[in-house]
Amino acid sequence: MSSTTSSLTDLHVYDTTLRDGAQQEGLNLSVSDKLAIARALDDLGVGFIEGGWPGANPKDTEFFARAQRELDLRNATLAAFGATRRAGGKAADDVLVRALLDSGAPVVTLVAKSHTRHVEQALRTTLAENLAMIRDTVSFLRGEGRRVFVDAEHFFDGYRLDRDYALECVRAAAESGAEVIALCDTNGGMLPGQVADVVRDVLDGTAARIGIHCHNDTGCAVANSMAAVEAGATHVQGTVNGYGERTGNANILTVVSNLQIKQGREVVAPERLKEATRIAHAISEVTNVPPYSRQPYVGASAFAHKAGLHASALKVDPDLYQHTDPSLVGNAMRTLVSDMAGRASIELKAAEMGVDLADSPTLVAGLLAEVKDLELKGWTFDAADASFELLLRRHLGQAVSYFDVESWRVITDAREAGEATSEATVKLTAGGRRHVATGEGNGPVNALDHALRQALSPVYPELESLELVDFKVRILDASHGTDAITRVLIETADSETTWQTVGVAPNIVEASWRALVDGITYGLNRQGVPAR
Amino acid sequence: MSSTTSSLTDLHVYDTTLRDGAQQEGLNLSVSDKLAIARALDDLGVGFIEGGWPGANPKDTEFFARAQRELDLRNATLAAFGATRRAGGKAADDVLVRALLDSGAPVVTLVAKSHTRHVEQALRTTLAENLAMIRDTVSFLRGEGRRVFVDAEHFFDGYRLDRDYALECVRAAAESGAEVIALCDTNGGMLPGQVADVVRDVLDGTAARIGIHCHNDTGCAVANSMAAVEAGATHVQGTVNGYGERTGNANILTVVSNLQIKQGREVVAPERLKEATRIAHAISEVTNVPPYSRQPYVGASAFAHKAGLHASALKVDPDLYQHTDPSLVGNAMRTLVSDMAGRASIELKAAEMGVDLADSPTLVAGLLAEVKDLELKGWTFDAADASFELLLRRHLGQAVSYFDVESWRVITDAREAGEATSEATVKLTAGGRRHVATGEGNGPVNALDHALRQALSPVYPELESLELVDFKVRILDASHGTDAITRVLIETADSETTWQTVGVAPNIVEASWRALVDGITYGLNRQGVPAR
Repeated sequence: MSSTTSSLTDLHVYDTTLRDGAQQEGLNLSVSDKLAIARALDDLGVGFIEGGWPGANPKDTEFFARAQRELDLRNATLAAFGATRRAGGKAADDVLVRALLDSGAPVVTLVAKSHTRHVEQALRTTLAENLAMIRDTVSFLRGEGRRVFVDAEHFFDGYRLDRDYALECVRAAAESGAEVIALCDTNGGMLPGQVADVVRDVLDGTAARIGIHCHNDTGCAVANSMAAVEAGATHVQGTVNGYGERTGNANILTVVSNLQIKQGREVVAPERLKEATRIAHAISEVTNVPPYSRQPYVGASAFAHKAGLHASALKVDPDLYQHTDPSLVGNAMRTLVSDMAGRASIELKAAEMGVDLADSPTLVAGLLAEVKDLELKGWTFDAADASFELLLRRHLGQAVSYFDVESWRVITDAREAGEATSEATVKLTAGGRRHVATGEGNGPVNALDHALRQALSPVYPELESLELVDFKVRILDASHGTDAITRVLIETADSETTWQTVGVAPNIVEASWRALVDGITYGLNRQGVPAR
Repeated sequence: MSSTTSSLTDLHVYDTTLRDGAQQEGLNLSVSDKLAIARALDDLGVGFIEGGWPGANPKDTEFFARAQRELDLRNATLAAFGATRRAGGKAADDVLVRALLDSGAPVVTLVAKSHTRHVEQALRTTLAENLAMIRDTVSFLRGEGRRVFVDAEHFFDGYRLDRDYALECVRAAAESGAEVIALCDTNGGMLPGQVADVVRDVLDGTAARIGIHCHNDTGCAVANSMAAVEAGATHVQGTVNGYGERTGNANILTVVSNLQIKQGREVVAPERLKEATRIAHAISEVTNVPPYSRQPYVGASAFAHKAGLHASALKVDPDLYQHTDPSLVGNAMRTLVSDMAGRASIELKAAEMGVDLADSPTLVAGLLAEVKDLELKGWTFDAADASFELLLRRHLGQAVSYFDVESWRVITDAREAGEATSEATVKLTAGGRRHVATGEGNGPVNALDHALRQALSPVYPELESLELVDFKVRILDASHGTDAITRVLIETADSETTWQTVGVAPNIVEASWRALVDGITYGLNRQGVPAR
């Protein structure tokens, strides 16, 4: 945890999107996805990012290896998740415990059983051995210089069944040097009053920092987390967008917003909280789970008001109709989407690109109108800065037109049992001449990419250095099936950096084509290549 | 409220899906939709159904007229929503108050201001006149023989600003004969502790029944409703699936399930609660808002388990891993077949489909090997139960082959500035004959879907009832850009249910084609159609 965050608060904000959140049905994260999410979480200002279970899962092992090389976290500390050692063994000899050390993460979070029936039926060991496993594993990792947090799994159910044993597990962890013992409502069945009572009882018997980890099976994950904090817990776990198994985990964005805005606790820097809406949506793009528009604070509908009888009162005093100022979380009231807010964010984005629009109100107004119109049609510029910059350059009269497309076509076919192949033909004018080129690929976008480069390479040999590195598809307005609008995000790289472009169209191939063309145009522009 | 429900409990369950729930963005209900939802709510056993605002909204006027003729409610009582009379007038002469009487609803729920600034700035009248409006309107409707409930709008914010005036409004309503005064957290910014404190304070000063109406802007609508009930409120309002403006209202299904299952209060008959999952989904069909799979208790994922390592323990004692028995709300435990899956989860999954594999270890081993192999290649059966069932049937020797594909082809093309179009041709054999058909669409999958149906419809007219309702694309191993593997998930529906299929291939069109073919095969199989 960086000194900045420590000075702001005594409360740990511990994110487990990459581990427990990834248990969500249909959510599958690549290592690159995980790194992108970790960067976004760091922007949010969380204190800890649990990255996964190294050793148990090869992808997570790779995540920690790449994190050491590639992640430059400013606010957060990485935590590796793992289990206490095997029954009957020694922590020092346990392959999985070793893998936790090898991950290089400064914090190790150990899941430990604290429920007698889980010890006996799932772990298949004795109650005494489970305590020994906790003590041995925590002590060993402390001896190796790691900070150790313990997730007491099924704690609340275990406490109900056998309070003494559950408390004994907390004691064993604390006495062995665990810095945090997080009480987990693993099955998610608790209500706030129960959580508060148990947290108070645990705090009566220990000096360790007590944490809370909730699931949303009673619809109370956020309230349960808040109740635990009110009862004295000073470490709160959750996931972005409430991702997680079954009904999901406590939504860390909601918990942090409540603590900060409703209870006046500064748990992250206020300017970090203003990133919450952007980050929630950016992470949705990475997970490819459609954003939940009714999500508290950051949802697209969270501050949307149906125009009607309140409209004039809304204008006089919006605070009469909203529970907080949406700008605190980077959101905006939607009936009144003030030109001020829209203008400001466009000016901000332009400034990020080194363009000062402060004295160009007409240009900003025109650009704002086009952005609003495009976003209404499904475009998103949150995740496609390069497309936004091209749009901005068009409004500034600085657009460079490298080529004029006449037509394109792509054919995909397959015979029984054979693999499908795609072949694309692109016709365009560049460098004063007409070019017709054909490319093959293992998919329509791949074929189009090849054909486009083929057609352009005689005029723009600089294209050599550009590479298409990521391709994401999102179907919008899914209720219409394949009649829906398709949004394609493409990431292109040169030897120095990567950039994102977006394309939207009813036809997935057309959407891809638009994003492809933007990606190549931006890349040539970036390298200062003139139109030929 | 029917005598049956009254005898079960003293707590009012008051549903406002048809009025406040319908404020949700994108939710538009016809009168027939409203009647269908009212019938479903009655099946659930709620005490009161708020049908809308007759007089203010012609559709709602018609709803009450048709409800009197067509609705035969067994459990619930209808309530008409409306406002206190206009400032300076008389309730007896007020057109909108008259419309409430004309609706024929036995209960009238009046919205009343209780927040001084709302009285002065939105209603533009004096604090004294607002109290007179409450007294006059409640008394008049009581005199006309109606039960009167009062929704004290913006109550919690008003109480914070001017406690005395807020309490004065409650007194005015109670003294005039209101049976219930529901305290509304209209802007949704409250937390459970605050709600409980205010409810207790109000109950200290009145003998009237106090109700609670919450919104979910802090993610605490359910917990706030529970806190109010614990503090003594005996009337709880909410909406099915948590529909409502902004972040939605308190989800009445969650509140009722919590009260009944977690706190042992019998608020609806237990056999009614078993309809909750069915009703949640049936109402989703009517509203055309896709069901939220992570919804507590009734969501498709609410009792879904992914972690393969727990599967063997799950078999021994499912209660170790679920917070309640899902059959209490008509839901079922679901094990997700994922790459962590072991034999136990495959057996569990097959059992869910009515196939007992306990005595078929060889078959299980073969199936497991294929699942693992496919998942390594990018398949996922987590979100594609139908594809898994087809795989299982192949291993059981029960696969039905409806058609043999010879080849398919799809062409997508565009000219400068024009929209792209797609055209697909499918060649296959079915019913002993070769069929060649062409279909157009606004994308390659849409075109293939049309061509495939065109080719099959002479032999399988049953395909008429199948519809492609959702389409999701995920690019796996994104580091290779468009060289990556593509996974397509398709959701197909008939008139009764929906199912998910998956297709994986390097080529996005081929992946889509595979998922399409599985979707149609499963649908024909499901309807018991034989191969022809």
